[in-house]
Amino acid sequence: MARGDQPPQVRTLKITLAYDGTRFVGWQRQAAGDSVQGLIEAALARFEGAPVTVHGAGRTDAGVHALGQVASAVVTCAHGTGVLARGLNGQLPRDVRVLSVTDAPAGFHARFSARSKTYRYLLRNGAIGVPFERALVWHVGAPLDLERMNTAAGALAGTHDFSAFQSEGSGTATTTRTLRRSEVRVLPPPPHGLHGPEAGILIAYEVDGDGFLRHMVRAVVGTLVEVGRGRRSPDTMVALTAGAPRAQAGPTAPPHGLYLVRVDYA
Amino acid sequence: MARGDQPPQVRTLKITLAYDGTRFVGWQRQAAGDSVQGLIEAALARFEGAPVTVHGAGRTDAGVHALGQVASAVVTCAHGTGVLARGLNGQLPRDVRVLSVTDAPAGFHARFSARSKTYRYLLRNGAIGVPFERALVWHVGAPLDLERMNTAAGALAGTHDFSAFQSEGSGTATTTRTLRRSEVRVLPPPPHGLHGPEAGILIAYEVDGDGFLRHMVRAVVGTLVEVGRGRRSPDTMVALTAGAPRAQAGPTAPPHGLYLVRVDYA
Repeated sequence: MARGDQPPQVRTLKITLAYDGTRFVGWQRQAAGDSVQGLIEAALARFEGAPVTVHGAGRTDAGVHALGQVASAVVTCAHGTGVLARGLNGQLPRDVRVLSVTDAPAGFHARFSARSKTYRYLLRNGAIGVPFERALVWHVGAPLDLERMNTAAGALAGTHDFSAFQSEGSGTATTTRTLRRSEVRVLPPPPHGLHGPEAGILIAYEVDGDGFLRHMVRAVVGTLVEVGRGRRSPDTMVALTAGAPRAQAGPTAPPHGLYLVRVDYA
Repeated sequence: MARGDQPPQVRTLKITLAYDGTRFVGWQRQAAGDSVQGLIEAALARFEGAPVTVHGAGRTDAGVHALGQVASAVVTCAHGTGVLARGLNGQLPRDVRVLSVTDAPAGFHARFSARSKTYRYLLRNGAIGVPFERALVWHVGAPLDLERMNTAAGALAGTHDFSAFQSEGSGTATTTRTLRRSEVRVLPPPPHGLHGPEAGILIAYEVDGDGFLRHMVRAVVGTLVEVGRGRRSPDTMVALTAGAPRAQAGPTAPPHGLYLVRVDYA
């Protein structure tokens, strides 16, 4: 190194972002198709002047959305965080938005440093699907009993073995997780909501936890809908949180109702 | 006609519908491209067994949405209204939904019988556009002063000559219209809304009137945004409601923030 040159300063960036997952193969880079990770890496590489690897807190599947995904990257570029946030948004398509870029402590990793995550799953329950919600809300036409669903949802709070809600490929050593909150509630009508009884109501399942198995939230929602339709009792959840096999829980709800809302760190 | 045959019973149907206007050339049938009118006519023709003409209350432009458009059609088919509503939805793509079908009095015409219409225009005012709102809300990055905008909006209520807000091609004899309500308000965050100050707020301009000139609501919104940005005074509206030329008002806001909310009949 020539005299007077500074060694490049290594920094860890924390990038908070939102995306509409509709057209993506998911968060994770794949052999083919657009991934959110791939887009962020390509945009960041332009500022770094070299390839960059970005790690996401949650590896959302194809069609799953994020209101507050967090990604981390180790870089050496010297740009200010505001410049990077605006610059990344200038590079990214409009279905992905960087909400903020901050400098994180050395060793920060979006996934391994995460202490808890919040997910929201949106359901429309009514005779007619709302045109504006096609890619954003799961439409369930059959009547749902919300009180039964909320009883069942509440039974999941606490520390349990959630293997009944795990798809193959979780690749985790343990299937025990702790959920701090697990509840079903009715949301106010959105600004594009239709009027009249035919459009029904918008429902959210919201869950905070220290970690989630593969497809866990979607399998929980698929099971809650079976409870809401009267096809299974809310009590079924007790057995399902004691390490029951996947086949005993309900089907996996479609991806497009699911949102990674936020990720919390210590 | 053979003995015992009944002459076909002529009925007038009132069809209330919602659509996401994103991929359509607009309400009206065009030489090329999908129109909402064309889809409804094609779906209804399958029940009628013959071509049907459908008239819409509002001829929404490409990209403009409807929460409660009304269409009328004169038919002879004998299907019940519930069967027709469900049957039409079975034929239609999911971005168009029939909310109801009812039998209307003879002579009912969705456009000529309408007494008033309500439109809503959605704006997102914040530094960052929300990914889920790309085709549904106009994103305005510059700060807007809502109080100024609401003062200006209120000045439009009443009976005025709205020629300043008319695009060519209205084809109407008079440019005088009566608005019963014209106001700007802040909406609660939608379920896919982002958190934090960067995403800003969701604003609605809402207007009820006995009729609207071509692009009138969009020209009003474009002008209100100029008022909100401090580029023109709210007082400007007084001159603009006294038959000023189009050039004196602001630009036409983009179509994708506009919704035909409802149509009222006597």
